[in-house]
Amino acid sequence: MTEVIPPGTRFVALPSPFAFKRGGELHGARMAFETWGELNAERDNAVLIFTGLSPNAHAASNEANPEPGWWEAMLGPGKPIDTDRWFVVCVNALGSCKGSTGAASIDPATGQPYRLAYPDLSIEDGARAAHHVVRSLGIERLACVIGNSMGGMTALAFLLLHPGAARMHINVSGSAQALPFSIAIRSLQREAIRLDPNWNQGLYDEHAYPENGMRIARKLGVVTYRSAMEWDGRFGRVRLDSECREDDPFGQEFEVERYLEGHARRFVRSFDPNCYLYLGRAMDWFDVAEYGNGDVLRGLATIRLERALAIGVHTDILFPLQQQEQVADGLRAGGADSEFLPLPSPQGHDAFLVDIDRFGPAIGGFLARL
Amino acid sequence: MTEVIPPGTRFVALPSPFAFKRGGELHGARMAFETWGELNAERDNAVLIFTGLSPNAHAASNEANPEPGWWEAMLGPGKPIDTDRWFVVCVNALGSCKGSTGAASIDPATGQPYRLAYPDLSIEDGARAAHHVVRSLGIERLACVIGNSMGGMTALAFLLLHPGAARMHINVSGSAQALPFSIAIRSLQREAIRLDPNWNQGLYDEHAYPENGMRIARKLGVVTYRSAMEWDGRFGRVRLDSECREDDPFGQEFEVERYLEGHARRFVRSFDPNCYLYLGRAMDWFDVAEYGNGDVLRGLATIRLERALAIGVHTDILFPLQQQEQVADGLRAGGADSEFLPLPSPQGHDAFLVDIDRFGPAIGGFLARL
Repeated sequence: MTEVIPPGTRFVALPSPFAFKRGGELHGARMAFETWGELNAERDNAVLIFTGLSPNAHAASNEANPEPGWWEAMLGPGKPIDTDRWFVVCVNALGSCKGSTGAASIDPATGQPYRLAYPDLSIEDGARAAHHVVRSLGIERLACVIGNSMGGMTALAFLLLHPGAARMHINVSGSAQALPFSIAIRSLQREAIRLDPNWNQGLYDEHAYPENGMRIARKLGVVTYRSAMEWDGRFGRVRLDSECREDDPFGQEFEVERYLEGHARRFVRSFDPNCYLYLGRAMDWFDVAEYGNGDVLRGLATIRLERALAIGVHTDILFPLQQQEQVADGLRAGGADSEFLPLPSPQGHDAFLVDIDRFGPAIGGFLARL
Repeated sequence: MTEVIPPGTRFVALPSPFAFKRGGELHGARMAFETWGELNAERDNAVLIFTGLSPNAHAASNEANPEPGWWEAMLGPGKPIDTDRWFVVCVNALGSCKGSTGAASIDPATGQPYRLAYPDLSIEDGARAAHHVVRSLGIERLACVIGNSMGGMTALAFLLLHPGAARMHINVSGSAQALPFSIAIRSLQREAIRLDPNWNQGLYDEHAYPENGMRIARKLGVVTYRSAMEWDGRFGRVRLDSECREDDPFGQEFEVERYLEGHARRFVRSFDPNCYLYLGRAMDWFDVAEYGNGDVLRGLATIRLERALAIGVHTDILFPLQQQEQVADGLRAGGADSEFLPLPSPQGHDAFLVDIDRFGPAIGGFLARL
């Protein structure tokens, strides 16, 4: 089982038992998080960040861990999410393998990893678990909840389940429900893992590990995280140097293939396959329409916020732009001063991680007006 | 090995040896084809069709085989490609497993299937092989060459290699070169097949067959052949009836997953895995820039045609619309009366197979003006 927990990660124990939306419960579970900045005396300057599928809670360097984080350019003193002003909390998703309790964690009832005995995870379970982190830090009301990608779903669940827990919300390349194209992609990723004989119904170990399934799953993910437009300019039809090519007649030949290979190699052993299955399925299940009598906009309109911002990019094929527009529309219908901000980034779904020139001012500007 | 040849298929022997662009040669090879209509006395009413990756030569019902073909609504008496007027020839791609010699065919030197001893296939080899079919039918000059998807590449290769062999060209959702997004998709499809232990360096048989790899490859293909927009309306978040669901906790749950499953089941045993590897790699290699000192438009402009039409749809992510525009522009620069026709089909790359309401008048109208 793969658990990779950065140094300096902090933990909060969840109530035990911690019941899941679809049944089942965890005992002795925990949430991993990190913080930046200081909570002020009024306790009204807290910002909570929900990550995408794979990141840990180390969004940026801090005293506990000076290594750069996955949103290093976005978060810190004087940066768009300015930690001189805001007390920022980033949680590792419940069900992940980066510190919060997931399928790779030890089940105290057996002393063995949960594997497929982990209960059916919903996005809402992660939202409720994060609320315990927030309360444990003495925060009654957040200034802002920020959610990226899967975290955009978790943020909406958080707002639906905990009315009054936040004043503002920034939804970054998120959505209020999974649509069939993204369900198809994630289903195919799960199938690639499950078809790997080494997956073995979740009973793999480091020696017999579903490496091939994870390779396919990750490469398929990367294909959908970026955009054809970006790759036309970045890779074109550039070939690998002959010394980089494999002997295999159907092996890598183009630069874009090496790029995917590099992503796969870094990911395969650093993310737990069972956790990947659970988190992907949770995304497929998520649907704000459940909170609006079958209507997404009505579900979103039950959320009460002062201000909201939904950001997306037109090259995103996984969480397409109309989904961020829908979030902005629904939150506006609920009474928020709500803005939809489409950005012309070429980098697709992952743009929020790399196109800080565009996402930084958008997020920083919104927060500065608080 | 999988060879699936429709009844009534006709064959033409290729010159033996038949040398390939990248080296190697076939001995005793053949091309499969079918025809519709009659060649007129002037021999100037012939239309040649190049298919996409997987179809056979049975584009439509005919006397030899009354079963509906894959372009039944497009081709026949009074249909857009009107066989009362045109003598239509459709070839099965060289390297395929539907009658033309491919990796699943018997190598006369060994009496065994070629498997990976098949030479490195290029799109150009298929174009040259098709030219032999045309000549064997007594046709000096085609009225029109039509190519869909991969066949759009083969048609361009045919026109580049055989100046004067055709007066007109319709390029349907094709392209003049493979771009990195589509290379990445096809590379991933090949990797899924090659990682299947049953692929066994091409030495599978019907008992130990790379079924899992082919499942992933086909599903990934279907995801890129259609469009998210179509699926939003067609599947939405509709769940399967409980009796259709698998016991598997990560198994199919959404209608879109069953749709992919149906496509995979029909394909996996009806297309040869090694042929799939060869044809996909040939597409990745294809680049008209080779004929234009490194410039695609210059390469296209070496082609002499009277009239040309390049059709595409804005929802195509595999052969995106700008690639059909490029084909039209390049052929115009070569002196053709050349039109680029973007169609608003929601069905993505496969639209030409299903959106006959839009593609029929476009193709039929072009041909009627000849």
